[in-house]
Amino acid sequence: MSYILRQQIEKITPLTDKEFEYIFSHFTTKKFKKHQFVVQEGENVPNDFFILDGCLKSYFTDKNGKEHILAFGMQDWWITDYEAYYNQSKATINIDCIEKSELLCLSFQNREKLCAEMHKIEHFFRKKTNKRNVALQQRILSLLSNNAKEKYDQLLQLYPQLFQKVPKQLIASYLGVTRETLSRLNSPTK
Amino acid sequence: MSYILRQQIEKITPLTDKEFEYIFSHFTTKKFKKHQFVVQEGENVPNDFFILDGCLKSYFTDKNGKEHILAFGMQDWWITDYEAYYNQSKATINIDCIEKSELLCLSFQNREKLCAEMHKIEHFFRKKTNKRNVALQQRILSLLSNNAKEKYDQLLQLYPQLFQKVPKQLIASYLGVTRETLSRLNSPTK
Repeated sequence: MSYILRQQIEKITPLTDKEFEYIFSHFTTKKFKKHQFVVQEGENVPNDFFILDGCLKSYFTDKNGKEHILAFGMQDWWITDYEAYYNQSKATINIDCIEKSELLCLSFQNREKLCAEMHKIEHFFRKKTNKRNVALQQRILSLLSNNAKEKYDQLLQLYPQLFQKVPKQLIASYLGVTRETLSRLNSPTK
Repeated sequence: MSYILRQQIEKITPLTDKEFEYIFSHFTTKKFKKHQFVVQEGENVPNDFFILDGCLKSYFTDKNGKEHILAFGMQDWWITDYEAYYNQSKATINIDCIEKSELLCLSFQNREKLCAEMHKIEHFFRKKTNKRNVALQQRILSLLSNNAKEKYDQLLQLYPQLFQKVPKQLIASYLGVTRETLSRLNSPTK
């Protein structure tokens, strides 16, 4: 399945077989069961995760025990607690598997090593991080907008594949609306 | 004032005088008056802005005409509409000056040119973008948290200098609370 990672890198910068082998040697593959935790609040976050297969969610639990979805992750996406990963601090969010998942793990040390050794990998990660910035800005603007219909439409337009994979109540939680509101938005009469 | 930019880059990677001169030659300096727009919704966003002096805000106007603050910017910070800048698309937010400001402008083309020519500049921008990712994640978690007091305390802890610079009603808008709620949070009895 490593070709999925290679495809993603090569969308940004071409690689020789040897270069890709070298890059890939810095990753480890791990399989996770449905509901298994990948990142746990209060723990260290040694890895960023490239999703070979499966579906995950990252979420924040507030003082009242209510869960708020920060992000979803699917094949070909990256996911971790970036605050904890970049700052090498403790996680403030949880990440777990919505379905069984296969992940490529890249430690912070290996990421920095690859970026220092290969300008093209530093370029790749800068470009990917730019894209995450855009996604996070969109997420903030979506949260700031009060209109549930707009939030729903934006999510559907950006990530139509999410609606196949992710249970409705998690989409509702991501949007900050009730399951009932989501059903109304989802209805063909709207 | 260019030393402020040099200081920031050198916190991440050392530079020779010649290297800094070359980098700096890719920026242009612009002065903006209080209330002047730097980025306007619906327009192109050719530049990222490094703030030499002053204070700015970026904000989103919803369908009802209500303004929601996305971010503030102060000396030594960068600000633009990153979605529009990275994608070379039209702005979806506005950025204007809370006080008169002096900015270094870096076009997308010059940023990419510098990153391609100098590995250390690609490294600098990757690290800065990582930091913005962390700030955006914190902003999202703050928005997801329902507790106004927590949001206020987080902002005060992260950016105490903002509270000297930015009018109270803008802080309230950023937090998504009324001016009255902010005054209560701000009171010494709390």
